[in-house]
Amino acid sequence: MSRKKKYVYFFGAGKTEGHAGMKDLLGGKGANLAEMANLGIPVPPGFTITTEACIYYDRHEKHPPGMWSQVEAALAKLERLMQKRFGDPQDPLLLSVRSGARVSMPGMMDTVLNLGLNRTTVEGLAAITSNPRFAYDSYRRLINMFGGVVMDIGHHHFEDILSAKKQQRGADLDTELTAEDLKEVCNAYESMVRNFDSASFPHNPLEQLKMAVNAVFGSWDSPRAITYRRLNKIPGHWGTAVNIQTMVFGNLGETSGTGVAFTRDPATGARTFYGEYLMNSQGEDVVAGIRTPRPIRYLKRRMPKIYNQLEEIYERLERHYKDMQDIEFTIQDGELYMLQTRTGKRSAQAALKIVLDMVKEGLIDEREALMRIEPQQLDQLLHPMFDPGATYTAVARGLPGSSGAAVGVAVFSSRKAEEWGAQGKDIILVRNETSPEDVGGMAASKGILTATGGLTSHAAVVGRGMGKCVVVGCGALDVDEKKGLMQVNGHIVREGDWVSISGDTGDVILGKVPLIEPTLSRDFEKFMKWADKVRQLEVWANADTPKDARMALRFGAEGIGLARTEHMFFTEERLPLVQQMILAKSDSERDAVLKKLLPMQRKDFQGIFTEMKGRPVVIRLLDPPLHEFLPRREEILEELYKEKARKSHRKKQISELSNLLHEVEAHHEFNPMLGHRGCRLGITFPSVYDMQVRAIMEAAVKVKKNGHRVRPEIMIPLTGTVGEMAITRENAVRVAEEVLKKAKVRIHYTIGTMIEIPRASLVADKIAKHADFFSFGTNDMTQMMFGYSRDDAARFLGFYVEQGILEDNPFSTLDVEGVGEMIKIGVERGRSTRPDLSVGICGEHGGDPASIEFCHVTGLDYVSCSPYRIPVARLAAAQAAIRAPRS
Amino acid sequence: MSRKKKYVYFFGAGKTEGHAGMKDLLGGKGANLAEMANLGIPVPPGFTITTEACIYYDRHEKHPPGMWSQVEAALAKLERLMQKRFGDPQDPLLLSVRSGARVSMPGMMDTVLNLGLNRTTVEGLAAITSNPRFAYDSYRRLINMFGGVVMDIGHHHFEDILSAKKQQRGADLDTELTAEDLKEVCNAYESMVRNFDSASFPHNPLEQLKMAVNAVFGSWDSPRAITYRRLNKIPGHWGTAVNIQTMVFGNLGETSGTGVAFTRDPATGARTFYGEYLMNSQGEDVVAGIRTPRPIRYLKRRMPKIYNQLEEIYERLERHYKDMQDIEFTIQDGELYMLQTRTGKRSAQAALKIVLDMVKEGLIDEREALMRIEPQQLDQLLHPMFDPGATYTAVARGLPGSSGAAVGVAVFSSRKAEEWGAQGKDIILVRNETSPEDVGGMAASKGILTATGGLTSHAAVVGRGMGKCVVVGCGALDVDEKKGLMQVNGHIVREGDWVSISGDTGDVILGKVPLIEPTLSRDFEKFMKWADKVRQLEVWANADTPKDARMALRFGAEGIGLARTEHMFFTEERLPLVQQMILAKSDSERDAVLKKLLPMQRKDFQGIFTEMKGRPVVIRLLDPPLHEFLPRREEILEELYKEKARKSHRKKQISELSNLLHEVEAHHEFNPMLGHRGCRLGITFPSVYDMQVRAIMEAAVKVKKNGHRVRPEIMIPLTGTVGEMAITRENAVRVAEEVLKKAKVRIHYTIGTMIEIPRASLVADKIAKHADFFSFGTNDMTQMMFGYSRDDAARFLGFYVEQGILEDNPFSTLDVEGVGEMIKIGVERGRSTRPDLSVGICGEHGGDPASIEFCHVTGLDYVSCSPYRIPVARLAAAQAAIRAPRS
Repeated sequence: MSRKKKYVYFFGAGKTEGHAGMKDLLGGKGANLAEMANLGIPVPPGFTITTEACIYYDRHEKHPPGMWSQVEAALAKLERLMQKRFGDPQDPLLLSVRSGARVSMPGMMDTVLNLGLNRTTVEGLAAITSNPRFAYDSYRRLINMFGGVVMDIGHHHFEDILSAKKQQRGADLDTELTAEDLKEVCNAYESMVRNFDSASFPHNPLEQLKMAVNAVFGSWDSPRAITYRRLNKIPGHWGTAVNIQTMVFGNLGETSGTGVAFTRDPATGARTFYGEYLMNSQGEDVVAGIRTPRPIRYLKRRMPKIYNQLEEIYERLERHYKDMQDIEFTIQDGELYMLQTRTGKRSAQAALKIVLDMVKEGLIDEREALMRIEPQQLDQLLHPMFDPGATYTAVARGLPGSSGAAVGVAVFSSRKAEEWGAQGKDIILVRNETSPEDVGGMAASKGILTATGGLTSHAAVVGRGMGKCVVVGCGALDVDEKKGLMQVNGHIVREGDWVSISGDTGDVILGKVPLIEPTLSRDFEKFMKWADKVRQLEVWANADTPKDARMALRFGAEGIGLARTEHMFFTEERLPLVQQMILAKSDSERDAVLKKLLPMQRKDFQGIFTEMKGRPVVIRLLDPPLHEFLPRREEILEELYKEKARKSHRKKQISELSNLLHEVEAHHEFNPMLGHRGCRLGITFPSVYDMQVRAIMEAAVKVKKNGHRVRPEIMIPLTGTVGEMAITRENAVRVAEEVLKKAKVRIHYTIGTMIEIPRASLVADKIAKHADFFSFGTNDMTQMMFGYSRDDAARFLGFYVEQGILEDNPFSTLDVEGVGEMIKIGVERGRSTRPDLSVGICGEHGGDPASIEFCHVTGLDYVSCSPYRIPVARLAAAQAAIRAPRS
Repeated sequence: MSRKKKYVYFFGAGKTEGHAGMKDLLGGKGANLAEMANLGIPVPPGFTITTEACIYYDRHEKHPPGMWSQVEAALAKLERLMQKRFGDPQDPLLLSVRSGARVSMPGMMDTVLNLGLNRTTVEGLAAITSNPRFAYDSYRRLINMFGGVVMDIGHHHFEDILSAKKQQRGADLDTELTAEDLKEVCNAYESMVRNFDSASFPHNPLEQLKMAVNAVFGSWDSPRAITYRRLNKIPGHWGTAVNIQTMVFGNLGETSGTGVAFTRDPATGARTFYGEYLMNSQGEDVVAGIRTPRPIRYLKRRMPKIYNQLEEIYERLERHYKDMQDIEFTIQDGELYMLQTRTGKRSAQAALKIVLDMVKEGLIDEREALMRIEPQQLDQLLHPMFDPGATYTAVARGLPGSSGAAVGVAVFSSRKAEEWGAQGKDIILVRNETSPEDVGGMAASKGILTATGGLTSHAAVVGRGMGKCVVVGCGALDVDEKKGLMQVNGHIVREGDWVSISGDTGDVILGKVPLIEPTLSRDFEKFMKWADKVRQLEVWANADTPKDARMALRFGAEGIGLARTEHMFFTEERLPLVQQMILAKSDSERDAVLKKLLPMQRKDFQGIFTEMKGRPVVIRLLDPPLHEFLPRREEILEELYKEKARKSHRKKQISELSNLLHEVEAHHEFNPMLGHRGCRLGITFPSVYDMQVRAIMEAAVKVKKNGHRVRPEIMIPLTGTVGEMAITRENAVRVAEEVLKKAKVRIHYTIGTMIEIPRASLVADKIAKHADFFSFGTNDMTQMMFGYSRDDAARFLGFYVEQGILEDNPFSTLDVEGVGEMIKIGVERGRSTRPDLSVGICGEHGGDPASIEFCHVTGLDYVSCSPYRIPVARLAAAQAAIRAPRS
């Protein structure tokens, strides 16, 4: 037979069995208590029951063999150490029971204090402390907590009894009740508990302990905990540990107290001891907010010895853990006890300052510093945000589409947004949903708010690209564009009314919330340079204009991985031309329009090339289906019916509208995402791509002749077959060579393709023979691999993530199992025939840390993302390289 | 140095160098001429220049080294053999030049006869034959043919001159012209040719020969030939051979003649020598149709020796080639020459009879017989068709959507079709496009005709499933449903007018074309049994009703691979219930409707199970997006505007319509193909699937209790993740077990899934752990692998196939390179975790021979297709097994 399994680990007073490395077994709290004890820091002694015991209990509905006898042995040891006995009627040992999983996890049973009190021992406690009020208050708290968390009795049942007693005594505060009052309250609690359920409050201390331990075990599988785990991707097999610890009391009088502190300022990161304390109180009093705690610096004057001891401990803890700590302590009768230490949460600014300082202090090195900051956190540093000091009430909440906060006047049409934006007004563009026609209005706005659509809807994707604050899918909005107003939860917002939105939380607020502007600090630049030193993945930007390009460079882009030419088609000046092009009845008519568009596109490209100073610029030829450039069917239909309903028919208008309707219907597609777009257009209407390639190469020639370097890369979208690639490449080369020959200059250019059609990944070996580079279009790839329409999937995606069918929204975080596998196949096959193939991704995932890690591991050369996501991507790439360096 | 390459192969008179196995090098015609010569059958001697020479010439624009000297050597041999010289002014040897590729290929230069004639030799020929008329007629023909095919001069230029001469002479027929007339015609031809181009007609015979040979070579790369090759998938590197052969003349008088014959009747397959001949004529006279040829049996009386010789030869050829031959012969002065033999084309009926007879005759074995019939041909045997004797003119032509022919009165709405159909009228349902709402009307019709949509449009797919004759995408139609008429190329067809359509050709005919009904002959049954003996793939049917199931069994189905439950939702009685279900405001409201639908579905399934007598029946749970069951947005919008336009507003109607519109809009999807459908519905509205599973299992119980065997297989559509499969399986098992427990019977049932989402194939190993079977849904898989919407892709698919970007429409023939690769991965991964996984396909491809071959090779267990395609599939599976037997 194997040795008995160890389920109980003792800690405190030189008998500690665990340490900080045992979080899996002892939970975070238990492991850190053991660690502190090992460091000689005073913690109330106790013991931890392991997570394995919890899992066994949840599976078998009983303790694992031997566990309880180990508990009893540990308890005996504790009694010897404290020289008190659990349940001793004269001088009872009191215990606390706390849960503690590997990570902090709401939804589980939390804490029961004062275990060991009953009608007998409470008298002993009263006698030995000479403080009957304290004793009965402690007993009252035990019944309340035990009843609540172990016996599942609603808190209000206890609150009612206490309130009744206070009313009876004319007391405002609990503290005004006498020991006798509290004793009566205890009696009332006990009989209420008895009536509430057939079970009584257990007076046997060991039974109290066993019930509390089992309640902690059971709470791991409570519906609330399960939901929390699902949402936060915590495996169910982790389990929780249980910490049983000698009680210490901060409420024994004026030399007792309790407090929480951070070893550095969690808001700014400044290297000052930061915290609050409250004399003569227990932790829950601080939380209840009845009395206001005082800043920790006042403790220095009041109890200098304790304060110095605390300072010494926090410095020791920081040096030991090499990170900012969040600590809890209790002072009992002038003696300090540490109840908890853990890594402290902090703002993005603080996080940055702390790691920079710690590197300077020699606590950690640069690589460790890089691992300490969540890439997502950097986002907070790049956008305006609500003043943290401001208070506000959200009238509704949508989905956080794009980071930052924005304040402006509500406007319900893009036309109006452009008009008012030009006048310098701050605009929030409010729409049911946005479409490519809204791009101008979006650009003119500070923020965008939509009633429908998910995190990858047009508004969110384009808004992120523009670095706008975006809130989408706010179902509470009822937008009436025509009337120029919206209703939201009973409020009416008219055009021109002030609105504030937060792209970090999705909050929608009526009126103005004060904003603070971010700055790219020197700290930030320094930190990013560290990231650049270690990362092996290049970071490029998705940028469609010279302004975007400038922004991208400022954020550290090393190239442009996606310049979408169609965004250049939606401006007021060009859209009519584009529509003429689409509706052209003959090739010559189309060519005439293209001739007008050529110089405009050339100018676009020239501007971008000039900004990018010889860095690679990948320009994607026209991608969306043509009907995106046409008015919507319903709109024409509506106008037509209106026109027909007029008393005096206007034949000309009706006929024009009918013709337009006919054209639009001819371009209608049932599933435009799977329709006549991308290179399918380029092949069926080759003159459009020819014009674009000409514009690109002529622009490159101009830039080169102006003495600058230039590196154009032409990208064919939506390739699915080798034939498409071969034909479009051949055409592009023909036009490019024609331009270069005429200009008598040589410019190195490349021609590659988006890989976004699943089939293309499977035949990548063949396509690579005609392509200089691949750029995985992970948005479309995700759509087709899953068969999800980005615009429609919101109907079930949320539910799927909630149910755990999907780990994440695959449009936010790359689905490594499916889409990732397809990308791997594509990279492998592509490089099998062209080993020097340059490979990147340019979907929305290019700015998502988890997806970036995948790109690093899969051996991609670069990721391309929105300018505002570039710092995030740089850090994520650095972290990926540290975790799994490429050889 | 290697030996000189051989480019010229002699044949005839015991000096033959080639044989029938050399078709790649000598072309079909050349190889068969050599083969006949080897068999001792009289062919005019000559030689063949190889296809390799052609390819060399087309690449290098010159003959390969040594070729022409080999030609000259062969010509010298021929001269010695014939004891005549090419260009001899007294007794010239005359030659024909004919192209001959591996397969017969229109678009290439065909034939030049009488080569070697010029102004000098024509006199010699006149003298030696004592027939100047014959000589000048031969010369005239040479200039005409040579001018036409070698010098590219339009035939009408020659025709004009000949007509003028006939007019001048008052002659109706060429034969009325005298030798002198023809000589003048020759002169006029020659000067016309001279004027036409700077080149003259060459009088040097060797130059004639060289030019003719080069013209054949060049014609391989003519635009017409290239187009033909692209359309028929003939590789460009094959090249064509050139056959140079001694001329024999059927027009030397009344003991000369020419004819064509088949060794069996190509229409019926009857074992009779079948053909026509014409005395004193050349082949082209037969073709020109000026004189009517006589049935070959008359030759027996007229030239019994020749006839017997012919009979002896055709029997020899059949025994030798073991197939029905199509032969050409010429009788010159009472001597028989064979000019060609090749495998004869035949009707489906004939093909069947011929192979059955040949097996009986011991000529071929059953396996060979199976390989002899194109699976597609069987289709002709299963549908009504136009009486082959009828003549008609098509007013328009669409795409052949589904085989057969149909005659009926035009009807423009499904409502009307159902109404008139119920009265026993023959209906052709004419629509712009069909949608699921039309299913009832389609079922009530003999044929379906649509103005839009491709071969995989709703009309085509559903029509094929129903075995209806379907013509789709007939762009010439202008259908006005409201007025109840259509315009087509200037004609107006009103409701009730007779129309005939052919699903084999796409022809649309006004009026009634007589039809003949097919019968499943005993020959057919016998042949299919042979196929069943060798095939290794099972053939199941897609069938949604007991009637379909009956039909499927009749055609030999071994199970039902796809019963679409949604088709059962579209009947007049149920649609309102389904709409209520969709628009239900609460679960209880929905459950109430489902309770009404349950017995209806149960009855459906019971009927199918009973028909199928214990064979597997795969029932797919609800698949399409819900909005397919709702009225269309535009329709409501139109009604709404109409209502609003009324002078007296009817508030109630407007409000009802507005509500409906709101609901429909709430269900609107941008890309319904990628939307909220399949198991996504089943997971978000589990009560729908629960009802369906309950109906399936309750039906199975009833059938079992009635004493029949039953094998239900429940299929989850659109699975993309393992979570979807696990959850839907769990739910289905729960409901099924509940039903069985209550009924106290055990029924073996399985639960599997469609694999149609690309991602599902990649994670098939995981999905297979929860699935008893996979059925590849190749329609959707093709859509998502290519990113093509089946409903929209017609915009570019035709162009893609034409341009060679795609080999085939991937919705008709499985794209082996991409979609097939994905299926292979899915099969491999699925069987890696569940080796006994049953795998089939149930897309439209299940009835396509090339796709069936893929399924066989990939190791699938079965294919499932429309009942009418089952014989095709059985044969295709047999052929695949013969070609590549599985171990």
